[in-house]
Amino acid sequence: MGGETARVKAEIIAIGTEILLGEIVDTNSAYIAQQLPELGIDLYFKSVVGDNMGRIKDTFQRAWDRSDIIICTGGLGPTDDDMTREGIAAILGEKPEVDPELETRLRYFFESRGYPMPESNIKQAWLIPSSRALPNPRGTAPGWWVERDGRVIVCMPGVPPEMETMWTEQVRPELERRSDGEVLVTRTIKTLGIGEGTVDEMARPLYSTPGIGIGTYARADGVHLRIGAKAATREEAWHRIIPVEQELDRIFGAAIWGKDEDTLEGHIRALFDDRKTTLSTMESCTGGLMASTLTDVSGAAEYFRGGIVTYWTDLKIDSGVPAEVIEEFGVISPETAKAMAAAVRARLGTDYGCGITGVAGPDPQEGKAPGTVHVAVAGPDGEPSVISMSMNSGRAAVKRRAVTTAMLLLRRTLLEAATVR
Amino acid sequence: MGGETARVKAEIIAIGTEILLGEIVDTNSAYIAQQLPELGIDLYFKSVVGDNMGRIKDTFQRAWDRSDIIICTGGLGPTDDDMTREGIAAILGEKPEVDPELETRLRYFFESRGYPMPESNIKQAWLIPSSRALPNPRGTAPGWWVERDGRVIVCMPGVPPEMETMWTEQVRPELERRSDGEVLVTRTIKTLGIGEGTVDEMARPLYSTPGIGIGTYARADGVHLRIGAKAATREEAWHRIIPVEQELDRIFGAAIWGKDEDTLEGHIRALFDDRKTTLSTMESCTGGLMASTLTDVSGAAEYFRGGIVTYWTDLKIDSGVPAEVIEEFGVISPETAKAMAAAVRARLGTDYGCGITGVAGPDPQEGKAPGTVHVAVAGPDGEPSVISMSMNSGRAAVKRRAVTTAMLLLRRTLLEAATVR
Repeated sequence: MGGETARVKAEIIAIGTEILLGEIVDTNSAYIAQQLPELGIDLYFKSVVGDNMGRIKDTFQRAWDRSDIIICTGGLGPTDDDMTREGIAAILGEKPEVDPELETRLRYFFESRGYPMPESNIKQAWLIPSSRALPNPRGTAPGWWVERDGRVIVCMPGVPPEMETMWTEQVRPELERRSDGEVLVTRTIKTLGIGEGTVDEMARPLYSTPGIGIGTYARADGVHLRIGAKAATREEAWHRIIPVEQELDRIFGAAIWGKDEDTLEGHIRALFDDRKTTLSTMESCTGGLMASTLTDVSGAAEYFRGGIVTYWTDLKIDSGVPAEVIEEFGVISPETAKAMAAAVRARLGTDYGCGITGVAGPDPQEGKAPGTVHVAVAGPDGEPSVISMSMNSGRAAVKRRAVTTAMLLLRRTLLEAATVR
Repeated sequence: MGGETARVKAEIIAIGTEILLGEIVDTNSAYIAQQLPELGIDLYFKSVVGDNMGRIKDTFQRAWDRSDIIICTGGLGPTDDDMTREGIAAILGEKPEVDPELETRLRYFFESRGYPMPESNIKQAWLIPSSRALPNPRGTAPGWWVERDGRVIVCMPGVPPEMETMWTEQVRPELERRSDGEVLVTRTIKTLGIGEGTVDEMARPLYSTPGIGIGTYARADGVHLRIGAKAATREEAWHRIIPVEQELDRIFGAAIWGKDEDTLEGHIRALFDDRKTTLSTMESCTGGLMASTLTDVSGAAEYFRGGIVTYWTDLKIDSGVPAEVIEEFGVISPETAKAMAAAVRARLGTDYGCGITGVAGPDPQEGKAPGTVHVAVAGPDGEPSVISMSMNSGRAAVKRRAVTTAMLLLRRTLLEAATVR
């Protein structure tokens, strides 16, 4: 930091027995880790330690010996189990004292809620000589910014919204001011409908481009390609990334549905918005997850009129699916999926209709294996199109994959309609 | 282990730059951590290290020096970035060699899929003298069970389904056979409808019971109380837990909806199954998440006929909600929620109907703040009941909380109906 040219070495420590024992999944560390590369900070280690004074001290001591910045979350509460402040004070050989200003604020926080402050909370007004307080607008525990011997320890609360506010408003800007190392800039390109091996092969000619790195990642919403470049400035990094991105755009063409933070549901909304067309859904095995996912993005009401969850077969027929189709082909069939898409399109009076039928599992149905799913899309032109899939990986994963497949089919259908017209 | 009476000290190491950088959230470590207490194994540390040989060796060396069992996931793939085997071989001073039997199996795996094995995959047939292979029925990377000097290193693949299968079928049974320390047995009691502070106060008289620990945890599905007891045998631990559990059952009564692994959707299904009654839903702001959640549990088709996602107001009217109610009270109102519940009950011909309307956000609607939600349940008797909530914590959290609130109201309604009749 400050004047040095070597890369800054950071590590993250999450403190708390609940996190150690897996009762809470540590999302804080991932949140922080994702933002460090943009700040030119290299992350070397992440660790979790329980509420145990000896092990907390050991962990801080090792981190202090090997890292420039230690970012820790948790252990700032008022109880005896909360020992982050004590641990840091111990390894630095400093003594915590109640800070009068912090105490006043803390007592006011409780008074304004109409009850007296439990005396155990007084710990939250502690400071050591090397620390200053980081205000916590969302809770009682202020953070600590500790700085000594050219090293920094940042302590934030473990409650994610409190941590995120403190990080965004105070810690990140401070780290940004101090950063003068190289920055890492990344661009993620999101594809759908091509396997990871094929994506890897198609992108391979670019892997040797100097000054950039490219990786492929299989994700729930398709295969991602990530281009990364480290440079002295963000501008310089972008100059390396852009030609590679343009080349990948050319290679993958219509298989690319989004970049960076784009979500598949946001992409689908944009496709419908552009075409000023509307959609409705009829779902069986996904039980409403398709409709729920489409409406996870705000503004979905512009194009999504609604849906029917036809969990029972007779409700499918009541909703317009011809009984003959079900009798002839079975409920779990491409034909029924197509009939569902067409029926909901007609019933709800939308431009497009989407139908999903299948076996979520764990038991087979109609002799069809769990994980067998058929998704169909009906539009204003031609026959409904259908994709059939089969994966036996548990109810939740089957539902999720069925929804992604339905979004893939919606995307294809809308893009094709655009070229035909 | 084996003959010792001291508690076994374990640590977990996750290996991979993607996990370190937060691009993947490390669910494996939480999965393993949750199961160690039942095996009488104390977990002291969890750490994450990237794909860097020096830091992998450092991390293993420290773990080897301080822990009896090291459980690690990741870094067993075929690429140069996968260095778990190399790191362990280095700290133990042993040399990896290709195991002919593993090689045969590996080549067969590829042949049976119709393509030749890339030569880089040969690493996956490596063993060192202190290791034996743990078969991987779901992928190409076998795990390693390393044992030397009374210490154990277990290496499993990072892909969660592969890890979970290997853990369940091989690693956990082996650790169970060796366990002779004290075991921790826990019982979780799940309540709904009472705040954490009140639960804590009500349970407090039992906190001083000797030989057990009690904790309260606010969760998405209500407040959990966890009773834990450590003893030489599971039987002995249960003898301490049961009287406390009985007392808590008495104190919390009908506020308790489940224990341990019970889910709220499973509980709702059981309530409907017991009464042989049926349900349908009409959802607006939750966009189908209520129906999807109810059908996350298998067998939901027994009671859940289906639902309508009435994202547009006109679709509410088409589905039987009186236009006058919406005109007089607005779409976002307790009256509309009640009318939705009654309408879907009538339309789908079920015993109960559930209606949800509100503002998922981020923008207000009808002048109502984001996070305002009304949920209603209509049954065969009397007026529909309704709960109104308000929380502004982002679209996903509002949807999730609305669904939990609807399940709470369904539960109350069914329990009351049972006492009335």
